[in-house]
Formats: sequence, structure tokens, C-alpha cells
Amino acid sequence: MKYSFKNDYAEGAHPRIIERLSEVNLLQQNGYGLDEYSLDAEMIIKRKMNNPAAKVYLVSGGTQANLIIISAFLRPHESVVAANTGHIFTNESGAIEATGHKVHGIENADGKIRPEDVQKIIDGHQNMPHQVKQKMVYISNSTELGTIYSKTDLIALYEFCQTKNLFLFVDGARLGHALTAETNDLTLEDFGKYCDAFYLGGTKNGALIGEAIVINNIKLQQEFGFHLKQKGALLAKGRLLGIQFQELLKDDLYFNLASHANQQAMKIKKALQLIGCEFLCETFTNQIFPILNQNQIDQLSINFDFYVWKKLDNERAAVRLITSWATTDETVTNFINEIIHLK
Amino acid sequence: MKYSFKNDYAEGAHPRIIERLSEVNLLQQNGYGLDEYSLDAEMIIKRKMNNPAAKVYLVSGGTQANLIIISAFLRPHESVVAANTGHIFTNESGAIEATGHKVHGIENADGKIRPEDVQKIIDGHQNMPHQVKQKMVYISNSTELGTIYSKTDLIALYEFCQTKNLFLFVDGARLGHALTAETNDLTLEDFGKYCDAFYLGGTKNGALIGEAIVINNIKLQQEFGFHLKQKGALLAKGRLLGIQFQELLKDDLYFNLASHANQQAMKIKKALQLIGCEFLCETFTNQIFPILNQNQIDQLSINFDFYVWKKLDNERAAVRLITSWATTDETVTNFINEIIHLK
Amino acid sequence: MKYSFKNDYAEGAHPRIIERLSEVNLLQQNGYGLDEYSLDAEMIIKRKMNNPAAKVYLVSGGTQANLIIISAFLRPHESVVAANTGHIFTNESGAIEATGHKVHGIENADGKIRPEDVQKIIDGHQNMPHQVKQKMVYISNSTELGTIYSKTDLIALYEFCQTKNLFLFVDGARLGHALTAETNDLTLEDFGKYCDAFYLGGTKNGALIGEAIVINNIKLQQEFGFHLKQKGALLAKGRLLGIQFQELLKDDLYFNLASHANQQAMKIKKALQLIGCEFLCETFTNQIFPILNQNQIDQLSINFDFYVWKKLDNERAAVRLITSWATTDETVTNFINEIIHLK
Amino acid sequence: MKYSFKNDYAEGAHPRIIERLSEVNLLQQNGYGLDEYSLDAEMIIKRKMNNPAAKVYLVSGGTQANLIIISAFLRPHESVVAANTGHIFTNESGAIEATGHKVHGIENADGKIRPEDVQKIIDGHQNMPHQVKQKMVYISNSTELGTIYSKTDLIALYEFCQTKNLFLFVDGARLGHALTAETNDLTLEDFGKYCDAFYLGGTKNGALIGEAIVINNIKLQQEFGFHLKQKGALLAKGRLLGIQFQELLKDDLYFNLASHANQQAMKIKKALQLIGCEFLCETFTNQIFPILNQNQIDQLSINFDFYVWKKLDNERAAVRLITSWATTDETVTNFINEIIHLK
Repeated sequence: MKYSFKNDYAEGAHPRIIERLSEVNLLQQNGYGLDEYSLDAEMIIKRKMNNPAAKVYLVSGGTQANLIIISAFLRPHESVVAANTGHIFTNESGAIEATGHKVHGIENADGKIRPEDVQKIIDGHQNMPHQVKQKMVYISNSTELGTIYSKTDLIALYEFCQTKNLFLFVDGARLGHALTAETNDLTLEDFGKYCDAFYLGGTKNGALIGEAIVINNIKLQQEFGFHLKQKGALLAKGRLLGIQFQELLKDDLYFNLASHANQQAMKIKKALQLIGCEFLCETFTNQIFPILNQNQIDQLSINFDFYVWKKLDNERAAVRLITSWATTDETVTNFINEIIHLK
Repeated sequence: MKYSFKNDYAEGAHPRIIERLSEVNLLQQNGYGLDEYSLDAEMIIKRKMNNPAAKVYLVSGGTQANLIIISAFLRPHESVVAANTGHIFTNESGAIEATGHKVHGIENADGKIRPEDVQKIIDGHQNMPHQVKQKMVYISNSTELGTIYSKTDLIALYEFCQTKNLFLFVDGARLGHALTAETNDLTLEDFGKYCDAFYLGGTKNGALIGEAIVINNIKLQQEFGFHLKQKGALLAKGRLLGIQFQELLKDDLYFNLASHANQQAMKIKKALQLIGCEFLCETFTNQIFPILNQNQIDQLSINFDFYVWKKLDNERAAVRLITSWATTDETVTNFINEIIHLK
Repeated sequence: MKYSFKNDYAEGAHPRIIERLSEVNLLQQNGYGLDEYSLDAEMIIKRKMNNPAAKVYLVSGGTQANLIIISAFLRPHESVVAANTGHIFTNESGAIEATGHKVHGIENADGKIRPEDVQKIIDGHQNMPHQVKQKMVYISNSTELGTIYSKTDLIALYEFCQTKNLFLFVDGARLGHALTAETNDLTLEDFGKYCDAFYLGGTKNGALIGEAIVINNIKLQQEFGFHLKQKGALLAKGRLLGIQFQELLKDDLYFNLASHANQQAMKIKKALQLIGCEFLCETFTNQIFPILNQNQIDQLSINFDFYVWKKLDNERAAVRLITSWATTDETVTNFINEIIHLK
Repeated sequence: MKYSFKNDYAEGAHPRIIERLSEVNLLQQNGYGLDEYSLDAEMIIKRKMNNPAAKVYLVSGGTQANLIIISAFLRPHESVVAANTGHIFTNESGAIEATGHKVHGIENADGKIRPEDVQKIIDGHQNMPHQVKQKMVYISNSTELGTIYSKTDLIALYEFCQTKNLFLFVDGARLGHALTAETNDLTLEDFGKYCDAFYLGGTKNGALIGEAIVINNIKLQQEFGFHLKQKGALLAKGRLLGIQFQELLKDDLYFNLASHANQQAMKIKKALQLIGCEFLCETFTNQIFPILNQNQIDQLSINFDFYVWKKLDNERAAVRLITSWATTDETVTNFINEIIHLK
């Protein structure tokens, strides 16, 4: 069977998680997120962020996290600004609009947005009350193109949002990968300071399911639990989420897994650079987008699976390769071996 | 620590599920419900129901299942009729209304609704187009009061719905318990025939999470996947759901677990009857609602936890006791021992 | 042709309104409610209410007013409590639910609700966050049964709402009729004090269309214009609404028209009382609900049109008779003549 | 006072409409669109379109028409494609998204969209069910830039939509102006054939309020009345809408008024061309977008009001001039006089 580089959720969970699930399996716990594992996971996250006033809510997936946060924070006439490559703009089957809110998409080359991009959207919506009011900026880190925000980027965007009375919300489905990239200069503490809310993705970094929503903005924490319930996100056995985040975060397992995934991607990147390959954009996380010709794609497709991301011309396309916490050295070595022998 | 009879989701999963999760943990699978475990679980369910034309969709919880099914099936001006004790009417934080649909609540004594109840709602909404149009009947089996529908009940309701052009949807969060009650005469096959859609609950019957939605009505299957995605229910690691239902259903584990829970409840019921206790309604599933006086409640509360469901007068209240697949004989023996020694 | 007592919107507008429309027809004005007539109507209403901090928004109809106010004031998990005879509960084709909010219906005999009714709903929704949160009380004055709230009633309800952190919103589609009923002790000023928002109905009191929404609660005024636009209520030619309210309110035309309608109803009521007729409920506004036998209904139906409101038994039914600003003395005399000659 | 060329809704209604309102003012009629004027207006429209199977629904405004049609026609996961200059994309305060649907905006130079533009959107949304499904194309005729669709344009788009299983919906807020433009080759009959639904705008062409929705597609007519009611569009005094459309359409008043507006704009256009003025796009309807320098804008602004539409550079901007059924020859002569004497 082919090895798949299609995504970072092809395997189950890190074995320590399965073990822990087994260990506490028969202990009775309160339902709906009031189990001791979830409460402990919340404490750990707040401690690691150094933000005791934050609130943590564990949910099962990224689209769910996005739609709940956005619909809970915005009033009916308010909209959210995103990159047009952003998950909420293009890959959630209209989930945000289904809760009643417009998403503005910003053209971009690298998956990121800047204050001036957002300002342009605002400038084009000054005919009140005939046009929606922008109230939130949504970014992903790492982005859907594998790129990351620097500390300067994040602070600039947050300060802009503060000035313009906008909420800043960070989709962190791959936040672990962003924070362990070699070019990264942001920390979890920064996310406790320079945004209104974000989430720490578990699904793509070693958990079976689970995203840990963190709300820094105290006003936005009010009655958030109702929104979780109303959108079907409050698991009766919240323990399933609590146990996983407890295990991932009680030491640095979470970051070690992400770092591993990044390193495997970087090894492959280097091999591709060696054979003169170019990339759609420069990334240092677990997603790389090398530009290959059809012949190369065909050869690599014999033993490996991956998405062709974007046709560039009749000959060449960018493909997307994603590594994960579970990608072994052996797999990487085999793949690199095929790369350097490409004809 | 007190033993809790508060609900049937206080423990983790049946050990066979944890073992199976562990066993296949590192095998790569497709995401979003296209893994081989989910596909196999679908086959098993369809075979057990003897309805090859049905479609199965695995989701993480009951509120999620309810809101997706209802919003996918109804047009904006259509409403759903439920018992006023029904989960969607009273316990989902407005989840159905949040998707735009009115829920009519029917007064009832036993958690069940009959064709004549529904007809009354319809009769009161003949001023078209000034009033919503009823298009769906929602029932739970077993109900929120632990009661069940008989085959005669179900067929009568379904035939009524067919005549009136209404969909019949069955919330089966505790369908296992209903189908294994000693007074039950319905089978899984009947649910493949006498309703438009239903779900088989996993969360309350031995799974970590998971409800298996079954859509019998072929028209209603169209493009259902979009609704799962839009509402945040399409798990990247759908394997987590697939593995659990595969394991629960490949032999009769699912029904054995439910039957066990029912039997434990019936033992407790008999002990309570022995001491002359009355019940809010007669049930044969894993939920019983004995009427106790405050003194009895206080005594039993020392070692056991349960909800006081409904105050009846200054002296007496109905309490709710729920057993589960994990309730041991020892626990039941201890509890019965306390019951028969109540002063 | 039969004369219709079916409703109070069978004719066009009071002639003074048509004249005024004609008079200013060719003067250019700003669009979208910024015309001088709308601005002046707002000033008049605020002066008459003696509440200079209020804001006034003119819209085209009652269902529109209800759905905009409720969806603008509530967050997604919040619900509104109404009488189950209330227009929003039963006669708006799910308009409120379509904006995402549950409406709780209270059983009642006279169309009115009291603090203790609302408290019962709140008491039944203490399982947070699993149940919706009540945040608004909706009443109609006059009610759908023609009854009215007294000053004591209104103050009691408003104080209750203040204590419970609930908004009080008054549907005033027939507020003119309520305020001119012989048993009324409320004034427009009271509505500027004892509720968060209400509207003054024009459609049923001499206008072609139009309801004047008044928001007393300053916080709830914020950005309200966006909601008008988003729901399609911001008329390009807002002048149409402004001119009508300006004309109705610049002297006491509005109240004189309502008073006339009430008086015509009271004359008919007295005639019916004379022949020993009973009524579904006691009303002093332009809606009366006499209980007639089938023979009487048949006789009166030859020359007059009205709704049979509620069958009481095989013999008798309550019918609904509505008079309007346009019901002439001649019509009333003819109708009374038929009443007193009923066989 | 300055004369305003800002829009085509600054005056009231054509005098014949006011007269007719006055004439029938005291005749009793059924409510909610069942008055004889509305029924007659429907017959006239169907006859003029030569499509007896169509259904007509009169509503009060364009945003209202758009949001009702789109939310009634689409299922929750379906989206609508529009020009990014389209009213629903940019000028309705998120009205369409508030009903749950994504609007895709297409970059364009002239306000129009072509099959290939729509195809590109579809091509970018093939990852089912992770992306919304396009189900409707929305166009305006005349467009927000004053341009019009030719018969070839419309047929090409409609045939494309038929092939792709998309609904075609035409916003006709200014359909009268489109159909009477000198370059137009479409007829009302064509709109009865080459789209699923459209509306005939009254507000911007001589009515006080009112748009006549026409649904050609028989399936989409089903239960449409419920949507009108639910969104607050069903006027109690539907007669107000019926009388206006009856009067506008019983002879060619509707088209004569639009033609007049177009001719006044064309006279101004010619004067501007004489002085060498360029235009943002070439239009033959009642909207023109001349490019002027700041000095010219300042001079014309002394006696006339208009919007500066788009800054082109530090010197020049395109302004928008709109004429209406009420723009007199005298006003046009005065304005032209100022144009030809611009320094």
C-alpha cells in the first residue's frame, strides 16, 4: 500500500493517548466538560500561556470551533475578514454563512493577511447601514499554505484590530507546527496576549479528535457554554477531549510531535532543493508545496500518495506534501531516496 | 466516592473498543468518514436492518445529529412536532430554532406522542401562509422518561405521517435500551421500514462518542454530506467513529450492553417495588423514576448520586436513576441492600 | 356586497394621509428614512412620549417589526417568552425562529401574561447551558383577544423584567385602540418608561402601511439601522412612512381614529348584550368576541362578513368582530338593527 | 435648494398612482395580497410576459425581494454567484448571508457576469462536501453600473445555468430602464422564458414602493407565500402594492416612465461627450458615470447634488448621475447649460 502524504490525520492518536484512555476508562466522571481531566487540561493550558484569566473550551473539530466562535462573538450585522485561502472562506461548506455572517476573502500569495488588506475591506464598506460592518479578523497559523506569522506580524495585526475595534481570532488547527517551525519567534504566551481567541489543534497533532479553544477576551467568555451546546459541540463524554489534551500538554509531547512533523517535512524539502526543485511558497512547517513536472509526479505517485494542489502550466504543478507526528524516519528516507533518483 | 446513577455516560468506553482503537492505531486511513472502518460499520448496520438502500452517517453526539437532520430535511417555513419532554424541545439550548425551525411541544404524561396529538397541532395551523407548516414528527425511543414505543405505536405514527406528508424521525440516543427492554416488540429492521430517519446511539451505550444516523428515505439522503460538513460534524479522523460502531455491531455487543443496563435497572426497580415504592411512569429500560420521600432520598444520597427529577409535594419527589453498560452487579447489590434497609 | 368586520385593514388610508401624500409628492427628499417627514415624525413621537432619548424607526409591518427587534436584541442562545395566543408565537409563519430564536408560549385565557407565568418558564430552564436562556418578554397591547394591560399590569411586568434581566417589548399593532379604550389608564408616556421597546401601529389605524418602532433602552439603539437594512425593511422611499406618521400624529388624529373604532365596537357590544349575548372575554377595544349560536351566525352572515373564531360546542361559537377607523355610523346602525331582530 | 441626481427615488409616485389610491381608498378589500388590485396586477403582468404559468408576488423593496427569493430557492448548503458589484454582494448589509447562504463575488468591469466567470467559481469548488455548492446565478438588469444584458447575453447565461443545474435570478429593480434603453433587444416575454425568476422594480420607476416578483419555474412557486410571510413581506394592505402595479402596467406607463428617465440621462451624456468627457463604462440607461476633474465637480456641485462614485487619481473621479421618471426637461436644460459652460 502507498504511504500517504495527503494529510496529517491519517493515523489514530499518539500511543500515550490511547494508553491513558485505557488507564482511566472505568473511572466515573461528570459529563459535559466538567470531568477532572478537562478541568486539569484547562489549568495546564492557562499556565503554559501565563494567562490565568483565559477560559478554555474543548471541542471536537476545527470547523466546529470556527463556527461557534464566530457566531458567538458577532452580532447579526457583523462580518469577518479572512484570507481567501482561509479555511472558513473556502473549505467549510458555508459553515460561517450558515450562522448568518458574511466572510470577506482577501487575495493573497502566502496565506497571510496584513493590516492594510483589512483596511481596504473596511474602506469599501463605509456606506452604513447598507453594508455589513467588519468586526473580526480571522487568521490561521500555520496557514493553509504552511506559512507562519512572525511576532511582528501578529502584534501589528492585533494592534490594528484594537484600533479598529475588531476581534482577532487565530485558527490554530496547526498551531503546534507553527510554534515549532525553525523560523518561528512566537510563543504560546504571545497567543495569550495578542489575540482575542485562538485554538490549539489536537486532531492534526496526535489526538484522535479535539481542538482547545482559548478565549482571552473576558467579555467574549460570557455564556460561551450555551453556544457550545446549541451547536452540538458539548460532548457528553467530554472526558475524551480532556484526557487527550491533558496527556499532550502535561509535558511537551504536543510540541515534540509538531516539531517531529516539521523536521520530517524539512528533510524532504532539502532533498527536493538538492534536485533543483522550486516551491509555491517558502514554508518551514509540516506542509510543503514543491513544483514538479508531470513525469516527476508520476514517478513519485507509484509508492506515495499526495494531492496535486495547483496546475501551473501544461507541464508543471505544485503538489502538497504533509508530514505528521507519525511519519517515520524510514518513510522519509524511502521517499528521499526516490526523490534523488527521479529521472 | 459516591457511585453515580446520574447518567449513562460517566465512564469511558467498553474495553473492546479501546483495544480495537489501539490495534489499528497506526494504520493510515482516508479522512472524513471514508476510512474502511466507517465504511464497514455502514455495511453492518444496513445488513442488520435489512435495508440495503439506507445510508449511514456517523457523527459525534445527539444534539449534533438532531440539528443536522432537522435542518437538512426541512425547508425554511417548515416545523417539527415533538413531545414537550423531547430533547430537541427542551434540552438543546435552542439548537433547532438556531437553524431556523420552530419546534411544537406536545403535553404528555409518558414522553410519547400519538397521531391524534400531532393532528391537533396541524388543526391549529390551517391559516396558511400565516402559520408554519408542520413537516416532521420527532420522537425518542426510549424516551426521555425511559418509556418505549411498541410496534403498533410506531406503525400507527408512521402511517399517519405518510398520510399527512410528514417525515418521521427517531432520536435513538438510547435505541439499544429500547430494543432490549423486556416489553419491546420492535427490531432494528422495523426502524429500517417505519421511519424516514433515525440514529443508533453510541455515547450512552458503551462508545466514547458517536451516533450512527440512518436515512431510509432515499430523497433525504441527497447531498447530506454537505450538511455534516457545514455544521462541523465531519470529523477528520472519522475512523474514531467507524472503529467504535464496527466493534459494537460486529457481533451483538451493542445489544448486550444495553440489555445489561436494562437488567441492572430492573433489579433496582424490583427492590423499590418490594418496599412499596411508586414510580412516575412505568419503564423497562435503563431509566427509572421512583417516587421517594425526602428521608429516603437523604439516606440513599449518602453513598449514591442521582438527580431529583420532579418535586411532587412537600414530602415526595420522583428521582431519576440511570444504569449503564458499566454498572456492576456489586454496585447494584449494594444499592439494593440500602433500599431494602431504608427507614 | 357584504360589509366586512373581518379586520381593521380592509380600507385604504385616512383621507388626510392621501391628501398629504399628494401635496408633497414631487418634493425631492433623501432616501432610506432620512427624509424630513420621517425625521419630523420621530420628533413628534418623542415629544408625545416625553422621552427625548428614545429612537424611532419606521417600518412597513408588524411581523417585520417583531422579527427585526427580536433578532437585533437577542444573542443566539437567548429566547423570548410570549402568550401562546401572541402573534409571534402562532401567526408569523415561524418568523422569529427563522432568525434563530425560540419562542416560549404561555397558556392563557385573555391574551395577557403575568410575571408568575414568565417565572414558571424561567424555573423550567435552569439546566444551563443545556437550555435556552430567557432574555425577553413579548406582549401585545391590545392583545390578539382585544384585551388590554392596565398601568399596574405593565409596571409589574416591567419591574419583574428589570429584576430578571429581561427585555420587555410591546407589540403595539393596535396600541392606539388600547390607549383609547374606556377602561385604559396607560399613556404614551408610560410606554416611554415601562418597556425597552414598543411600536405604534399604523396599518390597523388609518395608515396605508407602517409601524413606528420606539426603542427606549439606549444600549439597544446601537447600530439598529443595520438590522433594518439586513432584513429588507429600510424603504428607499422612507418618506411614505414618514408622511403618514407625521400626519397621524401632528394632532390627535391617530387617537381619534382608534377611539372611533372602539366606540363603534362598543355600540355593537351593547346591542349584543341587550339580546343576552355572552362574550369569550371582556374587551373595550375594537375587537369583540360574542358567543352566538349557528342560527344567529347564519342570519348575520347574509349581509356581514366576520370570522368564526372558536367553536365552543355543537351549537355555539365565538365570532370575532373588528371595527376600524373607517366603520361608519350607518354600517353600525344597520348591523345593530339586524342584531336586535335576530330570531 | 440643489437638484439631486443622487438617485431615482427622491420624489413620491407618479401622480396617476396617487389619484388611483385616492379613488378606491374606501372600498373594502381582502388583506394580504388577495385584494382585487393585486390579483389584476398579476394577470396583467402574466399577459404582458405571455407566460400564464408564472406566479407574481408583490413586495415592498428590492433587498426584501432578493433575500426572500434566494432563501426560498436554496437549500442550506447552496450558494449564489453574483458580480462583486451586485447589490446582494455589497449593498444589503449581509442580508443573504443572514439567511444562511454564501454569495460568491465575481470581479468585473461593467457590472455583468458571463458563463465563464461562473464556471471558474464552480471549478474552484469541486472538493465536495467541503465546499459550498453553487446553485444560483444572480444578475441585475440594468446593472449597478447602468449597463444592460443583451438577448444573446441572457440566453447564453440561462442555457449555461440549465446545463449546470443552476437557477438564474434577475434583480430587476431597474428592469424598466433596461428594457427601454436604446441598445436593448430584450422584452418582458424574454424574461418569462430565459430565467427562473426576476422582479419588475416599482420603487425606482414611479411607484411609492413595490417590486413585482415573477417566478417562472413552477417548482419554485410551491409554498412561496410562506416565505413572504416569514420574512415580514406580506403586507396586510397588499392593495397598496396592487393598485400601484395595476396603474403602472395597465397601459405602458411603466415603460414610458423608464424611457423618460433614460432619455434625460442620454441628453446629459451627450452634453458631457461634447465637452470631451469620458465615462467609467458605456451606459444607455438612467445611470451615467462621467469622469470629471475636481474643478468640474466643484462647479457642478453648486446647484446639483450627486455621488462621487470612484476616485481615479488625485485629479479625477467618476461621478454617478441618476435621472428618474420625475426629472423635468427644465432641470436637464439647466444642468446641460452648466456642463457646456464648465471652465
